Amino acid sequence: MSITLVPNGSLTTPHGFQAGAVLAGLKSPGEGVLDMALLVASRSCAGAGVFTRNRIVAAPVVISREHLHAVRPRAVVVNSGTANSVVGEQGFTDAREMTRLAAEKLGIQPEEVLVCSTGVIGVELPMGIVRHGIRDIALGDNGHDFARAIMTTDTHPKETVVSTRIGRRDVIVAGAAKGAGMIHPDMATMLAFLTTDADVDPACLQRVLTTAVDASLNMVTIDGDNSTNDTVLVLASGEAGNPTITDGEAEAALQEAVSHVCTTLAKEIARDGEGATKLIEVRVEGARTLQDARLAARTVAGSILLKAAVYGNDPNWGRAIAALGRSGAAFDQSKLVLYINDICVLDGGAPIPFFKEAAIATMRQAEVGFVLRLGLGDESATAWSCDLTEEYVRINSAYTT
Amino acid sequence: MSITLVPNGSLTTPHGFQAGAVLAGLKSPGEGVLDMALLVASRSCAGAGVFTRNRIVAAPVVISREHLHAVRPRAVVVNSGTANSVVGEQGFTDAREMTRLAAEKLGIQPEEVLVCSTGVIGVELPMGIVRHGIRDIALGDNGHDFARAIMTTDTHPKETVVSTRIGRRDVIVAGAAKGAGMIHPDMATMLAFLTTDADVDPACLQRVLTTAVDASLNMVTIDGDNSTNDTVLVLASGEAGNPTITDGEAEAALQEAVSHVCTTLAKEIARDGEGATKLIEVRVEGARTLQDARLAARTVAGSILLKAAVYGNDPNWGRAIAALGRSGAAFDQSKLVLYINDICVLDGGAPIPFFKEAAIATMRQAEVGFVLRLGLGDESATAWSCDLTEEYVRINSAYTT
Repeated sequence: MSITLVPNGSLTTPHGFQAGAVLAGLKSPGEGVLDMALLVASRSCAGAGVFTRNRIVAAPVVISREHLHAVRPRAVVVNSGTANSVVGEQGFTDAREMTRLAAEKLGIQPEEVLVCSTGVIGVELPMGIVRHGIRDIALGDNGHDFARAIMTTDTHPKETVVSTRIGRRDVIVAGAAKGAGMIHPDMATMLAFLTTDADVDPACLQRVLTTAVDASLNMVTIDGDNSTNDTVLVLASGEAGNPTITDGEAEAALQEAVSHVCTTLAKEIARDGEGATKLIEVRVEGARTLQDARLAARTVAGSILLKAAVYGNDPNWGRAIAALGRSGAAFDQSKLVLYINDICVLDGGAPIPFFKEAAIATMRQAEVGFVLRLGLGDESATAWSCDLTEEYVRINSAYTT
Repeated sequence: MSITLVPNGSLTTPHGFQAGAVLAGLKSPGEGVLDMALLVASRSCAGAGVFTRNRIVAAPVVISREHLHAVRPRAVVVNSGTANSVVGEQGFTDAREMTRLAAEKLGIQPEEVLVCSTGVIGVELPMGIVRHGIRDIALGDNGHDFARAIMTTDTHPKETVVSTRIGRRDVIVAGAAKGAGMIHPDMATMLAFLTTDADVDPACLQRVLTTAVDASLNMVTIDGDNSTNDTVLVLASGEAGNPTITDGEAEAALQEAVSHVCTTLAKEIARDGEGATKLIEVRVEGARTLQDARLAARTVAGSILLKAAVYGNDPNWGRAIAALGRSGAAFDQSKLVLYINDICVLDGGAPIPFFKEAAIATMRQAEVGFVLRLGLGDESATAWSCDLTEEYVRINSAYTT
């Protein structure tokens, strides 16, 4: 099994998908600004989804989950600018209407349409604008437009496409995602969409997506907050013509491709976190359980004191250890080993003298990695984050005003 | 029962206490800079303590806990600048030596001395400097100096003193604390010291302290990180001459005074959080359980998105609701009511139209309060935090460099 990157690919690279986007008027006009998008498959798809674990659940999440359970999906309609969350009953009415409008345009059933919204919470969707927006979307090989339309405070679209061989056929898996604030494990204001032309059984597809997301998009933390709208969806058109994937080697091959797409998107979301200048990667090795490894990696990556230290190229590693200490993960202080990039700063729980100038220099790089060895078992996990900057504060102190 | 504020009081206001502080050289010299302090009682005290729940525990915390369990305490020695945490075995040797040096100076046993350190993690104490520092401390009515010597990034000392009547005697309770970063529920780089001249049974004193701290110092969150050194200590000299407090009305009177002191210190720590310009108070009412109320209040108060919004006078209340949603507390979305200061923004789970200019104006005040009514039960809790500013990032991106 091996995967190949497809350069400049988009959600419409796999066979059987069209997309389009418009500036409907939910966001302020500007060069390249789009705010509504539609993705549609040539036929009924195998579909799978992973949704926010926040107990406040936005209306579109509820509707998408319902539809996904009811029938095989064929389309996704998305808006950015307004989250359609915490607006009472009207939110459900509007989310349903979005699926009905898209279905009418496409000549399919409303239940075949999934719906996502992202933006400010507590503001009703201006349905007049939405109605015109959906009508005006022109469908085609416009996956890149779809990726731009879902952006909020993202500075650039996030897309990645790979191909692999399954059942003697070329299979393509594509992904697009948006971040970039209110991002935390268990999803966030994160929307991610995957398309593939693989023929795959829906139960198998759900298993593959969940496994991939748990180790990638659920291991990204920007600010500790998760959102009410987080959604990852995958549609599989089956147009690659491979024998239907149900398990075994074929599932493993699809898993590799889907996991690669999700991990790439996760890192891109972290790298483009609000105000970020650097990607932080925290790898925890030697944990007793996978749960401990993930808990420790996410807690250390999420420490805002550590994130501020990385911004300042400050090898103040005590903050990583203090975060580990409050993570709840099991460890033995006398066995801890910590590296910043390639520099060992802690061994056997005691500080190692290191050249501070060298540590500062290594932290000036665009990617700062922490490896924390617990020495208790064989489980490991990686989490991604970004540095905390004055710009993050500026972005988030004047979002609605 | 009623309590009276003692203006300009300090830890040496209660009868039977002396204190002193010096600039030993653990921090850079500057006007008014002190970095080592000693507090001593005229006789053996009833003592009680609450310590960090971080699994990484600094050496002085381990030693103080040991000593407190072994004998009645008489003195506390503190340094700021270095945390004496995560430095291997040497940390324990040094913490023990600090208690021995203080004991020799005072003519008491090392076990009668409690020890605290605060500052950078992973740096050994320079014991030559510490030794001279302890020797040079001049004892007297110098409680204010003690409060200044424990400061790190605090902008001003935090002290409060009250008096009350117990058993027909005037009893004084005094407190001093330091924040101001790595502050989170379950304690933080928070050191708080209380003195009282009440005569009180140690078990009763521990009960009173735990109750007070749970509703005050454990309800402060600055940045989600708690530290390895957090300690709250109280020494009771008994010099007020009241009948020994063991329970009942006398305990309730002492509780009121101790809770008042702890709550005042908690709010002062939040107000003086690193880079803060405003105090945030989050009150959750109508929770099903006290645990839910505290969880919800602390999670909302700790949301860095909400903290950034408060800094920008931005009534983006969806962030409070999203934080509630991930808190784990039980609630029914359709019953939620939310106020920002006196302005209702959400009722029955649906947004209430409000004058945005009025909301922005109310958020310009130095204290911004959120009241969140869950409508499920009778439990309530209050948490304190501060806004997130560019200055917080600046302070924490260049702490050791």
